[in-house]
Amino acid sequence: MAAETTEINVLTADTLLKNWQGHRRLTRRVIEAFPEDKLFQFSVGGMRPFAEIALEFIRMAVPIVDGVSSGEWKEFKGTKPSTKSELLRLWDAQTTELDAKFPNIPPHRFSEVDNAFGMWENPGVATIQYAIDNEIHHRGQGYVYLRALGIEPPPFWERD
Amino acid sequence: MAAETTEINVLTADTLLKNWQGHRRLTRRVIEAFPEDKLFQFSVGGMRPFAEIALEFIRMAVPIVDGVSSGEWKEFKGTKPSTKSELLRLWDAQTTELDAKFPNIPPHRFSEVDNAFGMWENPGVATIQYAIDNEIHHRGQGYVYLRALGIEPPPFWERD
Repeated sequence: MAAETTEINVLTADTLLKNWQGHRRLTRRVIEAFPEDKLFQFSVGGMRPFAEIALEFIRMAVPIVDGVSSGEWKEFKGTKPSTKSELLRLWDAQTTELDAKFPNIPPHRFSEVDNAFGMWENPGVATIQYAIDNEIHHRGQGYVYLRALGIEPPPFWERD
Repeated sequence: MAAETTEINVLTADTLLKNWQGHRRLTRRVIEAFPEDKLFQFSVGGMRPFAEIALEFIRMAVPIVDGVSSGEWKEFKGTKPSTKSELLRLWDAQTTELDAKFPNIPPHRFSEVDNAFGMWENPGVATIQYAIDNEIHHRGQGYVYLRALGIEPPPFWERD
């Protein structure tokens, strides 16, 4: 039976976007859970504060959707937020932008291999999945920061 | 164009298994990176040591594939490893088992909603994706433990 699984479709573009936005809602709650000063300054083991990690997610999300869509890979051009409310405003603007842009990705671009940012040779869907996985990975790091600060992080399974 | 995206298939069962096994190879390297005593005893912020986290992944992986396959949700029945080599042996046995069992999941079970372990009402593919996301999330926690121990974790993007 093994060979047959290559033919079984298990995910639509629409569900992929829904999954991503669910994770992004959770990441937003993690940003919110940090006291303002800890968000920008606290870390464990010499790693980056969570505000820098969140900015990495922002640098990836819309630029990746734009790149998968168009084949043009452009770096995020925005001002680096210096307060929690600025960071959340930028986050929310990207939420709206992703919902608007993602459905316009040409269907063939999900499977087409492209060189994302001139560095990562992958099918479009793998580049998008990498952005989601990277967000889950580094957000897990934020959970440890919160626990180390004595703050209960938001439940991982809650995505609404 | 938005409505059309519901029709765009972006992932096959075969690629989902490949993605998962790629993540599992990385998790295996994270387990290996811990000194034996730290694997079972070290943590940050009152969280679980990484051996317990890895055992959680083991408790989920094959039982979830069995449950999605058959509709029967049974808990993992195995001895809790007490050494790094026992843990890695169990990990490798599951790698083989996943490769054998995953391709036999009946195609309709990926979209069929089922009550995983009597607790989590989701389509089969979402239950599998949850296991993968949970592994990425808690493995990220392991990266912080390693950094706090002064150990360089394996590169996140390396999945071979």
